[in-house]
Amino acid sequence: MSEPSTVTDAADPRLSDYTDLTDVELRRRREPAEGLFIAEGEKVIRRALAAGFRMRSMLLTAKWLGVMGDVIAETDAPVHLVEPALAERVTGYHVHRGALASMERKPLPSAAEVLDGARRVAVLEGLVDHTNLGAIFRSAAALGMDAVLLSPDCADPLYRRAVKTSMGAVFSVPYARLDPWPDSLAAVREAGFELLALTPSGAEDFTVAKSHLLDKAALMLGAEGDGLTPKALAAADQRVRIPMAHGIDSLNVGAAAAIAFYAVNHG
Amino acid sequence: MSEPSTVTDAADPRLSDYTDLTDVELRRRREPAEGLFIAEGEKVIRRALAAGFRMRSMLLTAKWLGVMGDVIAETDAPVHLVEPALAERVTGYHVHRGALASMERKPLPSAAEVLDGARRVAVLEGLVDHTNLGAIFRSAAALGMDAVLLSPDCADPLYRRAVKTSMGAVFSVPYARLDPWPDSLAAVREAGFELLALTPSGAEDFTVAKSHLLDKAALMLGAEGDGLTPKALAAADQRVRIPMAHGIDSLNVGAAAAIAFYAVNHG
Repeated sequence: MSEPSTVTDAADPRLSDYTDLTDVELRRRREPAEGLFIAEGEKVIRRALAAGFRMRSMLLTAKWLGVMGDVIAETDAPVHLVEPALAERVTGYHVHRGALASMERKPLPSAAEVLDGARRVAVLEGLVDHTNLGAIFRSAAALGMDAVLLSPDCADPLYRRAVKTSMGAVFSVPYARLDPWPDSLAAVREAGFELLALTPSGAEDFTVAKSHLLDKAALMLGAEGDGLTPKALAAADQRVRIPMAHGIDSLNVGAAAAIAFYAVNHG
Repeated sequence: MSEPSTVTDAADPRLSDYTDLTDVELRRRREPAEGLFIAEGEKVIRRALAAGFRMRSMLLTAKWLGVMGDVIAETDAPVHLVEPALAERVTGYHVHRGALASMERKPLPSAAEVLDGARRVAVLEGLVDHTNLGAIFRSAAALGMDAVLLSPDCADPLYRRAVKTSMGAVFSVPYARLDPWPDSLAAVREAGFELLALTPSGAEDFTVAKSHLLDKAALMLGAEGDGLTPKALAAADQRVRIPMAHGIDSLNVGAAAAIAFYAVNHG
């Protein structure tokens, strides 16, 4: 049981986990270095706790005390009660969802660990957009993907916007980094996976509809716009295509991922 | 051939089509009332012109004069040359894409007109989010949907953000309003379409994979969160389900639409 304490000074060191949340560049460096991430809103905070993340502290406005009462009753983490205006001054934005939690990161598993027992994995290259990354995790969870593997230059799935867009799916879908890239794709192949590169152009081996016939499939997706790099395409076993209407250049990467995740599980 | 003229005053009436672009509420009322919409960025402007929309005027910063040179050579519409700071003062935001065009709306076709000859249509209810709406149009174009029908409370596909997210697909995919709602769904059925309501919960008739067997299919999708209303569900012929992993409540509506559009065309 934590006793909420009122904080009235934006410079209070107890609020330091929550400062400058709109400064993406700063937070991208700070959060992994300090071993924390920010969960925003009741649902996401509850999902982070349910996934076993430890809470460092919570920042609330008064009207969320009741809603979060059971969480407060069960945590030893400090709970900071602030006025909405102070929340905005500290974080840099109007906190619509009224509740923020600073959570402790867990050590990332290795690629070998997340591949163990998996049959359907997504491999993402160069996904730097947090919204797209979060959307892909949300689809991966809903459509039964077992894990996500990330190239070293992909964005951080625990960055606030990715967490929010994923609806907390970044907590439930196991993920790991593949480093060095793309050489470590060999380890995915050695684990028994067929590496399928999703690409709208170039020579294609088959449409995505046939991917569900494979015992173990790794679906490789590149960033919006450029898609997979030539070296990633070269490292794949096959190129896979979503049939598209005449004259259209591409789908949004989140839409392409959703279709591929559906097709690799259901044909 | 239009001769670009330099404008230096934010209050110049020649710029009035471009004022307060960040005020969504205002622009939502103003643009349909004045018969205009805003196309943003080179690609989208070119696609609007290619789709036969008439240009009212264009607003450019100097570095875009070259890129848009051929467009300027072919138009009679006035071209307003402004400094980046003035563009920001007029529109309310930093215009990254450097080129805006005010385009003239065309009269919307009737539902009967867009259904004529169509075999695959999307029916959207209560889609008020411009990003989701634009993403759905983009997927509809890429995945070969013939038309989109909108409930009266759906957002405007020609609102700037929807246009941008759609990558201009709102210009190429025919759409119409269905009014009164949901009674006018009867006209879709009378045109030979099976009305398939996409819903994650409740009694389901079949998974989306079987929808490609239908001669004419209308895929009904509701808004993020609440989904289709009970009255829309009641008006459908069948309920259709995307198979989802255990314990996940739903997909993002854009992801669900992409999967449904894919499945209704390819199984």
